[in-house]
Amino acid sequence: MRKNLLIVVSAPSGCGKGTILSEILKDDNYHFSVSATTRQPRDGEVNGVNYHFLSREEFERRVENDEFVEHAEYCGNYYGTLKSETDQQLEKGKDVILEIEVNGASQMMKLRPDAVFIFIAPPSIAELERRLHKRGTEKEDVIKERVAQAERELSYAPKYDYIVVNDALEDAVDDFKAIIRAEKCRTDKNK
Amino acid sequence: MRKNLLIVVSAPSGCGKGTILSEILKDDNYHFSVSATTRQPRDGEVNGVNYHFLSREEFERRVENDEFVEHAEYCGNYYGTLKSETDQQLEKGKDVILEIEVNGASQMMKLRPDAVFIFIAPPSIAELERRLHKRGTEKEDVIKERVAQAERELSYAPKYDYIVVNDALEDAVDDFKAIIRAEKCRTDKNK
Repeated sequence: MRKNLLIVVSAPSGCGKGTILSEILKDDNYHFSVSATTRQPRDGEVNGVNYHFLSREEFERRVENDEFVEHAEYCGNYYGTLKSETDQQLEKGKDVILEIEVNGASQMMKLRPDAVFIFIAPPSIAELERRLHKRGTEKEDVIKERVAQAERELSYAPKYDYIVVNDALEDAVDDFKAIIRAEKCRTDKNK
Repeated sequence: MRKNLLIVVSAPSGCGKGTILSEILKDDNYHFSVSATTRQPRDGEVNGVNYHFLSREEFERRVENDEFVEHAEYCGNYYGTLKSETDQQLEKGKDVILEIEVNGASQMMKLRPDAVFIFIAPPSIAELERRLHKRGTEKEDVIKERVAQAERELSYAPKYDYIVVNDALEDAVDDFKAIIRAEKCRTDKNK
């Protein structure tokens, strides 16, 4: 009881994952595990905050060096979870929140079945499409691809322990907090 | 998701179960399942509110009539859960809270594995003993028996899905509410 949790979160783009997590992370009992990636930083993304941005060579060197819990290729880029961001933080007594896409999460389900897996879902695909348009940062064909991607990702949701539907932000944040609180009361009989 | 829950709660005497449940039941989405028993009403207990007080003959007749989900004998009296208090309420769209002792709960784990099982525990046996003395309603030998009973019951706690430690009442109520909220986000993969 009251053990440290490794919380794995996935969400299609446009589900408000970032907003939910920034609310959760206001409590500094959490360590947000920063993933490593070989993709290019987007505007405003900061190395070591949003991602550890690595070259392909550097990424592969660290894979060789067994520095990753998991890694996967996604849309032509590597993404991975460094042990320094997860296991080492759990040992320090922190709850660790790890945001990864569905393939990485599927690996984690095998590697770390003790983790808590949460999928953040949009109320519907139509609503997701509306939000992506409203954000106005991407072109029409990119939005179409993101919606198709979201539909693929949603098919993974039943493999997670929990699904948080982000209909109203405040409710989704409260659901997320309730899950963490409840998991700390959980016995180990189901894991 | 957002399905109706059957919530089974057990707690040793003196754990503050009644106080926690009365806080939870302020929300009228819940139906509190009133158990049937053949034991004598205590001062202030009302038939149909605290228990359905039945004669031994009437209880046995209803068992014959298949009106119970489960029943068990405990300290020389019958206790049981009527279908009219659980399944029929779930069908009406209510979340049902069922308070039963550990033997009845063990039966329910087999009969209704889809239910959510919560054990309310005292912070320690010493603290439980202190609280029973403070309550001042029972004699020394009764308290001794209750403490011994609590120790036996605590050994069942790991079979439950959750353990809520009632150290500070407000925290225990919040834990309980978080568990219910989280369970409504839960996928079925673990049940």
